[in-house]
Amino acid sequence: MNYYSTLVTNLIDELRRLPGIGSKSAQRLAFHIINMPEEHVEHLAEVLVKARKEIRYCKCCCTLTDSELCPICASPKRDHSTIMVVEHTKDLAAYEKTGQYEGVYHVLQGTLVPSLGKGPQDIRFKELEARLDDPDVKELILATGSSLDGEATAMYITKKVKPRGIKITRIASGVPIGGELEYIDEVTLSRALEGRIEL
Amino acid sequence: MNYYSTLVTNLIDELRRLPGIGSKSAQRLAFHIINMPEEHVEHLAEVLVKARKEIRYCKCCCTLTDSELCPICASPKRDHSTIMVVEHTKDLAAYEKTGQYEGVYHVLQGTLVPSLGKGPQDIRFKELEARLDDPDVKELILATGSSLDGEATAMYITKKVKPRGIKITRIASGVPIGGELEYIDEVTLSRALEGRIEL
Repeated sequence: MNYYSTLVTNLIDELRRLPGIGSKSAQRLAFHIINMPEEHVEHLAEVLVKARKEIRYCKCCCTLTDSELCPICASPKRDHSTIMVVEHTKDLAAYEKTGQYEGVYHVLQGTLVPSLGKGPQDIRFKELEARLDDPDVKELILATGSSLDGEATAMYITKKVKPRGIKITRIASGVPIGGELEYIDEVTLSRALEGRIEL
Repeated sequence: MNYYSTLVTNLIDELRRLPGIGSKSAQRLAFHIINMPEEHVEHLAEVLVKARKEIRYCKCCCTLTDSELCPICASPKRDHSTIMVVEHTKDLAAYEKTGQYEGVYHVLQGTLVPSLGKGPQDIRFKELEARLDDPDVKELILATGSSLDGEATAMYITKKVKPRGIKITRIASGVPIGGELEYIDEVTLSRALEGRIEL
């Protein structure tokens, strides 16, 4: 099947290994790259290698970053007494985009997955506990996902942290803004009902 | 908006410039790359740069390849008297996948686009004409797309090449296999009717 020549085939194969890239997309990407100015390709390659080499976990909140402390943990403008616990760096980004949150984060880099035997030692829970030793921490906001595993993780953290007497909250579940009721699953609807607030 | 750190943001931005990669996919790809083994990332980067550097147009058929002649033009097993004219290297690949074609190709690297003033000098038509000087060439199969521009290109080539007395054919248009008639546009249906064959 080498109708392209080895180099083109190699490039397509490499691109196809990336998540969400099928064989048609890999082909389209490959031809795009071949037609890009040479210095752009070199720049892209450099950014890839540099990112992989220099990115590490923030010493404090465990998000992916390129210095010892991520920009949020390093900022004196943030409220370091409120910690929002999220699963992944991209969840942190999602909350940052709202521009509504002033506190700091803790990125677990995963969730408990009881069905696969993934326990607290597989996520950044130990690091979270260490942070809670600081008496300045006033509130822990659990913002793990509303999947089974996200819920299990929130419950586990609650059970473990409760005795410390820190305020623990969970982000609200409910009907997404703009969501049509008829298309929303029953669990979400029940949650929305349970969590109703007085106006 | 630098909640990730410069390197992660740079990587996401670079990936987002690629065709068909939106901001969510770029983010997912970036995190995948950051979590890949370092030597895989280095390999990917190398393949990118190498492909861009070493890939060129086949001296004969103008497809993208990494040697002077592409594997098809260089093969003595192919029938060099039949040339199929396609728009892009990926069209050549699509025909090669059928395994039904024994001849060689000519890749125009585009089509005429009369509406944008893109003329014969903008595609590899001069190179095609040069190949037709070889008296061994018996048939030219026009396999440009069935878009307006593809049709215009096929018509242009026919007009120019006809006087040479070489047999010129056009791939059939019609209903795709497995296609439901009701979902097929009228132009295709008319073509299918015009091109009907006796059984």
